Amino acid sequence: MHLDFTSEQRFDDGVLERRFTLSGIPGILWTPDAAGPAPLILICPPPLGLGTVYPRLAGRARHYASRYGFACATIELPGSGERPRWAEADRARADLRRAMEAGEAAGPGLVDALILPLVERSVPEWRAALDALLALEGIGGPAGYEGGVISIGVRLAAVEPRIAAANLFAGSLVPASILEEARKVAIPLHVLLQWDDEGNPRQASLDLFDAFGSREKTLHANMGGHTGVPAYELDAGARFFARHLG
Amino acid sequence: MHLDFTSEQRFDDGVLERRFTLSGIPGILWTPDAAGPAPLILICPPPLGLGTVYPRLAGRARHYASRYGFACATIELPGSGERPRWAEADRARADLRRAMEAGEAAGPGLVDALILPLVERSVPEWRAALDALLALEGIGGPAGYEGGVISIGVRLAAVEPRIAAANLFAGSLVPASILEEARKVAIPLHVLLQWDDEGNPRQASLDLFDAFGSREKTLHANMGGHTGVPAYELDAGARFFARHLG
Repeated sequence: MHLDFTSEQRFDDGVLERRFTLSGIPGILWTPDAAGPAPLILICPPPLGLGTVYPRLAGRARHYASRYGFACATIELPGSGERPRWAEADRARADLRRAMEAGEAAGPGLVDALILPLVERSVPEWRAALDALLALEGIGGPAGYEGGVISIGVRLAAVEPRIAAANLFAGSLVPASILEEARKVAIPLHVLLQWDDEGNPRQASLDLFDAFGSREKTLHANMGGHTGVPAYELDAGARFFARHLG
Repeated sequence: MHLDFTSEQRFDDGVLERRFTLSGIPGILWTPDAAGPAPLILICPPPLGLGTVYPRLAGRARHYASRYGFACATIELPGSGERPRWAEADRARADLRRAMEAGEAAGPGLVDALILPLVERSVPEWRAALDALLALEGIGGPAGYEGGVISIGVRLAAVEPRIAAANLFAGSLVPASILEEARKVAIPLHVLLQWDDEGNPRQASLDLFDAFGSREKTLHANMGGHTGVPAYELDAGARFFARHLG
């Protein structure tokens, strides 16, 4: 896949933000104002479209780049933003909405139909993004991963040897097959959990944390709902990566 | 109760360590090399005697004092070190040891007999230590608390308004009555949990974390057994106090 830069902007904090497309997939790269290769952190967005989540993502990325010297990059998930939707995912999302409105729990079939196709489609794209980004001047390994749809992070951490550490947000439903894949993950993990996440059963997240095969894994649980992650966790994540992406 | 200094030592990092007795109870105070009143952190030792745990305690205290400008103090727990033992506690400890060697779980009666008298005796001593320490020149409020026997921290956080934040180690059994007291705790909390703590059921610690009434509470769970808290948690604790003891 081919990476083309489409625009760039330099901020007061010295961070250079460049929009790109990766064979048609929109993405953003933030690099620090520093010499020498910067370790790369892939930031997976929630599936709401980069336009919607840009302020949050850019805030994280610029903190990481300006204070810690990391390069950060994100790409749009399949089916989000301007990318083509696909019927299967739309149907699963509608079914999930109906179940939640009816006060029913999302059954395992529904979770699988919603999450597994997203994992299948997106993980090869993140690996292609790694190929393209690590080939750029000023960016070096090892790479970290952080983000939103935790099942994508589990699969990527299990199959991609260039990911050396991952900061995962336990804020979405996890198919049973992904829980099994978690046992194969061996890299250092930092897992965020919102104690009262509305759509996300706490015990399932604790079971996922328990399942990870990593010798070093830390769970940070905080009060509040899905969107209530405290501001101080931003720097805790940065310090986790600073320990592992030397 | 009356505080008398018995010896002092200044370290390379500028920290002044002073041994004292508080109406006969041995204690240690570490203060930073800085002008102006330093916020105070009480560090409760595990019940193994200050002589045994000194290296660990002094390491924490000097990190807090030299890097963050906190004053830190500890006192010997009742029944530990050179302090008089009491028959009731010795009997409970022996019963607990027998139960564990027989592979039995410690029943609630045993937990109560072991923990509640320690809470009853030690909390007034920590409050007296606060009186004496906050009256010293160079030490100001608000105060923080951290330490080992978590039930002592729960009671102290529930009843002592001068404690503004607490960093608690969920590494000991908790009587049901203390679990109830946890609901009254309202101050910001930072709770450490070792995921595979041998003598300490994980679910009981998660239940305790859940029970705390505090609006701001964070759980940091790490891999390993009781004594395996990772070194990076030292600074995470310091940063928690830095947010709350301004």
